[in-house]
Amino acid sequence: MNLTAEYQKMRDLGARLSDLTAALAVMQWDLEVMAPPGAAARRAAQIGTLAGIRHEFLLERYRPVVLRLAEVAAADDAKLYFIHRRNILAAAESVEKAAALPSDFVAKSAEVCANAQTVWETAKKNNDFPSFAPYLEAVVELKREQARLYRNAMPGRFADDYSALLDDYEPGMSTAEIDAVFTQLSPALRRLTAAAPPPDKRPLFPVDPDPAAQLKLCRKVLALMGYDFERGRMDVSAHPFTIGFGPEDVRITTRVVSGAPLSSLYSALHEGGHALYEQGFSPVAYGLPEAEACSLSIHESQSRIWENNVGRSLECCQALFDDVAALSPTRLAGYGPEDLFRYVNIVQPSLIRTEADELTYHFHILVRYELERELLSGTLKAGDAREAWQEKYAAYLGVRPGNDAEGVLQDVHWAHGSLGYFPTYTLGSLFAAQFFAYAQAAKPGLNDDIAAGRWNTLTKFLSENIYLHGRIYSSQALCLHVGGEKLNPDYFVRYMESKLKILGGR
Amino acid sequence: MNLTAEYQKMRDLGARLSDLTAALAVMQWDLEVMAPPGAAARRAAQIGTLAGIRHEFLLERYRPVVLRLAEVAAADDAKLYFIHRRNILAAAESVEKAAALPSDFVAKSAEVCANAQTVWETAKKNNDFPSFAPYLEAVVELKREQARLYRNAMPGRFADDYSALLDDYEPGMSTAEIDAVFTQLSPALRRLTAAAPPPDKRPLFPVDPDPAAQLKLCRKVLALMGYDFERGRMDVSAHPFTIGFGPEDVRITTRVVSGAPLSSLYSALHEGGHALYEQGFSPVAYGLPEAEACSLSIHESQSRIWENNVGRSLECCQALFDDVAALSPTRLAGYGPEDLFRYVNIVQPSLIRTEADELTYHFHILVRYELERELLSGTLKAGDAREAWQEKYAAYLGVRPGNDAEGVLQDVHWAHGSLGYFPTYTLGSLFAAQFFAYAQAAKPGLNDDIAAGRWNTLTKFLSENIYLHGRIYSSQALCLHVGGEKLNPDYFVRYMESKLKILGGR
Repeated sequence: MNLTAEYQKMRDLGARLSDLTAALAVMQWDLEVMAPPGAAARRAAQIGTLAGIRHEFLLERYRPVVLRLAEVAAADDAKLYFIHRRNILAAAESVEKAAALPSDFVAKSAEVCANAQTVWETAKKNNDFPSFAPYLEAVVELKREQARLYRNAMPGRFADDYSALLDDYEPGMSTAEIDAVFTQLSPALRRLTAAAPPPDKRPLFPVDPDPAAQLKLCRKVLALMGYDFERGRMDVSAHPFTIGFGPEDVRITTRVVSGAPLSSLYSALHEGGHALYEQGFSPVAYGLPEAEACSLSIHESQSRIWENNVGRSLECCQALFDDVAALSPTRLAGYGPEDLFRYVNIVQPSLIRTEADELTYHFHILVRYELERELLSGTLKAGDAREAWQEKYAAYLGVRPGNDAEGVLQDVHWAHGSLGYFPTYTLGSLFAAQFFAYAQAAKPGLNDDIAAGRWNTLTKFLSENIYLHGRIYSSQALCLHVGGEKLNPDYFVRYMESKLKILGGR
Repeated sequence: MNLTAEYQKMRDLGARLSDLTAALAVMQWDLEVMAPPGAAARRAAQIGTLAGIRHEFLLERYRPVVLRLAEVAAADDAKLYFIHRRNILAAAESVEKAAALPSDFVAKSAEVCANAQTVWETAKKNNDFPSFAPYLEAVVELKREQARLYRNAMPGRFADDYSALLDDYEPGMSTAEIDAVFTQLSPALRRLTAAAPPPDKRPLFPVDPDPAAQLKLCRKVLALMGYDFERGRMDVSAHPFTIGFGPEDVRITTRVVSGAPLSSLYSALHEGGHALYEQGFSPVAYGLPEAEACSLSIHESQSRIWENNVGRSLECCQALFDDVAALSPTRLAGYGPEDLFRYVNIVQPSLIRTEADELTYHFHILVRYELERELLSGTLKAGDAREAWQEKYAAYLGVRPGNDAEGVLQDVHWAHGSLGYFPTYTLGSLFAAQFFAYAQAAKPGLNDDIAAGRWNTLTKFLSENIYLHGRIYSSQALCLHVGGEKLNPDYFVRYMESKLKILGGR
C-alpha cells in the first residue's frame, strides 16, 4: 500500500463527507433561523434524504479506505507520522460505530424520535407526562437495541450498555468513570451549596434593558473573546445554539429574555465559547478528525470556561460593569462591580436545569443520569419516571416541581433519543475549571488581563492547547496532554471554594 | 413490468433528486444572502461536492428507472395515464442530456468557468477586456465540446451546435426558431422605437426615498400579487434573484438603488412573478417534471408579465400611485398616475441591458445572440469580441460604450458558461405579452381589476394555465395549450403599439 496516497485519499473522502455534514448543518441553521413557517415539513424530508446519502457515502466510500489504513496504524507502523496515526485511529473509531447500525434501524430510530418529539411538545404544553410515557418507553427500547448493536459489532469495547451510548457523545468515556466523578463531586457540591451566601434579593434591573442595546453588548463581548465576525454571524433564535460549516463559517444565536436582563450576555459568552472552538480548528485539516470536536464535554468546557470561569468572575464584572450598567436607564445607581459579581453568582436550588447556578446545576444532571441508567436497565419503567423525578429533586435539591413542564418534561433530550448525553454537561464544567487552572498557571497575568479586557490571553492558550488538537485525542487524553493529569473534579471544587470565599459565604 | 410500482419508484427517486437540488439551492441562497465573507471559498467546494453527488445519483439511481419507463411511454402504451406519460418523457429528455456529459467534462467545465468568472470580475473592474479574452475563448471551446457531446449522444435531436446548447435552457427550441423570431421582431422594434415619445426629463424623485419605505411597498405589492409569505421571504441582495426549495419555500431578493427610486419596486414585481410560478407548482407532484419550471423563457414570461404587462400599465400606475407618491417627501406634488405611467415607460436606447426599456431591450439580446453564434462557429475570435460588440451597439442602438464595463464585459453569463441563455429573455417578454392577451380574453375585467388592486384575477389565470403544468410541455406546446397558437411575436408588437398610442408618440 502507498501510505501517502492512501492517507491523501482518506483525507479527500473525509473532506467530501464534511461537505455533506456542512450541507446538513446549513439546512438546519436555515430552518431554525430563516425559513418561513410553511417550509418545515418539506425541509425535514430534504434533511432526511441528505442524511441518508451522507450515511451511504460514509459506509461505502469512506469506511473501506479508513479500515485499510487502520490496520497499518494498529500495527504501529513506524513509517506513519504521529498525527496521521491519530487521525486514522480516530476516524476508524467513528466509522466502526456508524457501520454498526443497519440503515433500517437508523430509519426506524429517526421515526420513533420524530414522533416522540412531537408528542413531547404537546405533553409539555399540557403538563401531561402520562401521554408521553409510552413514547419515552419506545425511545428507551430503541436505545437498548442500539447499545446491543454496538456491543455485538465491537465486542469488548464497551463495559456496559450505558457506556456504549455515552460513547456516541463522549468517545472513550465509561459509566464507571461518570460514577467516580459523581461520587467525588456530590459531597463537595452539598457542602458548598450549604456554605453559599443567601441570595441578594434587590433587583438589579427594575426594567428590561433595550433589546438592541443587549445585542450590541453581545457583539462587543464576542469581539473581546476573539470571535471572528468575518467567519461567522450572530442571530437571534428561541434557543441559543452554535453551528459550524467549517472553520470559515461558525454561527451563533442568542436570545433576549424579558425579566432576565443578562440572559442574552451569558448566552453570547456561552455560545461564543463553542464558536471559538470551531473557528479554531485548523482549516488545512478540514475533513480529518483533527478538525472536529473532541467530544461533547470538551465542546461544553469551551463554552463554560467563558460563561462561568471568565464570565462570572469578579474580574469580568470589573471589565464589563460600565457596559452592563449602561443597559439600565438608571445606570445601576448605587451598585458597583462587586454587586454585579454577587448578582451573577446567586446559589439557590431551583427546578429548571438551564436556569441553575454553577453548583446546584450538577444535581440536575445527577438526577437525569441516574434515571437514564434505571430506564435503560429496566429497573425503572417510563410510566414511573415522573414520580422518580420528583423524589430525586426533593432529595438532591429540596424542591418539588408543581407540574411536568417544570419537572420531568422540561428537557427535549430524551424525546430526541439523546440518552447518555446529560453527563457531558457536568464533565464540561469540570474540564473547564481544570483548563482554566492550567491557563492561570501558564499565563500568570490572566486574571489581570480579564479585568482589563485583554481576553485574547485566554483565547491564545485555548487555541494552542485545545482547539488545534480537534479529535485526535479522547477527552481524557487531551486533558492529560494539556496539564499532565486526567479529569479531576478537585479543580472545580477549588474554583468554587475560592469564589465562595470572595462572595463571603459561611 | 409493474407500471404503477415503477412509476412510483421514479417519483420517489425524483423526490430525492429534488431534495438534493433543494440542498444545493439552500447552500447558494445562504452564500449570497447570509454567509460571512470568509465562508465563500469553502462553500464553493461544498457546493461542488454536493453537485457531484447529485449528478451521480441522477445517473446511477434515477436514470435507469426513467429509461425503463420511457421505453413503455415511447410505445404510447394505452395503460399509461396522459400525465404519467408526459412526466416520464420529460424526465427522460433531461436525464439523456445529463448522461451525455462525462463526469471529467463536468469537472473541467466547472473549473474553466470558475476561473473565467474570477478573471471577468477583475477585468470588468479594470475595463480590461483583453485580459478576459483568452478565458472567453476557453469557455467557447468548452461549449463547442459540450455541443458535440450532446449531438453524438443524441443523433438527430439537434439541428446545429447552438440548438444543442439552447436546449439546456429552452428544451425543444431551435436556432431556426430564434432566427425567425428576430426576423419578425426587429423591423417592428425599429419602427416602434422611432415612434416612441421623447423622454420626459423632469425628475420624479428629487431625493432618494427611504429604503425601509421602499421595502414596505415591495411587500405590499407582493401580497397584492398573491405571493405567500408563509411559504417564502424577501431579503435584500446585490443582484435580485428568486430561488425555490420546493413550493413551500420560494424566496426572493430585491435591492435599493440610489438614484433609481423605483428599482426596488420593479425588482419585486419581477422576482415576485418568478416566485409565484414556483409557489404554484403542485406540492404533491414534487420530484416530477410536473413540479418543475417548463423552461427559462416561460420562467421569464412569469416575471415579465408582472413587471411589464401589469407593472408598466396605466392601470397599475393608477393602483399604485398613492403608495409610490408617499415614498417621496414632496409626495410627487403636481404629478398624477399618467405621469408615473410616462416615467416608467421611457423608451431610449442605452448601453446597459438590465436598465433598458421594454423595446430597446431586445436589441441588447440580439447583439449577444449574434455574437454567441459567431463565437461558437469560429467566425469570430474571442479577442475580437470587443470590437464586434461596439459595432453592433452602434448599428442596432446607436450608442457606443465608453469602456468594457458598460460594453462587452457588462454581463456575467459568458464567464458562467451560459451560452444559449440570452435569447430566452426575449422569448420571455414575447410569451408574457401573448399570455397577457390570453388572460385579457379569458377575464374581460382584467384591466379594471388591475386598476382596482384585484391582482388575484391574473394570478388565478396563470395558476390554472401555466403554473400547474410545470415541465410536462415544451414552451411551444404549453403556449399552444394555453391559447391555441404557438409563440407569435405579433402579440408583443400589438401590446407595445397600444401602449405607445396611450403615451402619445408619433
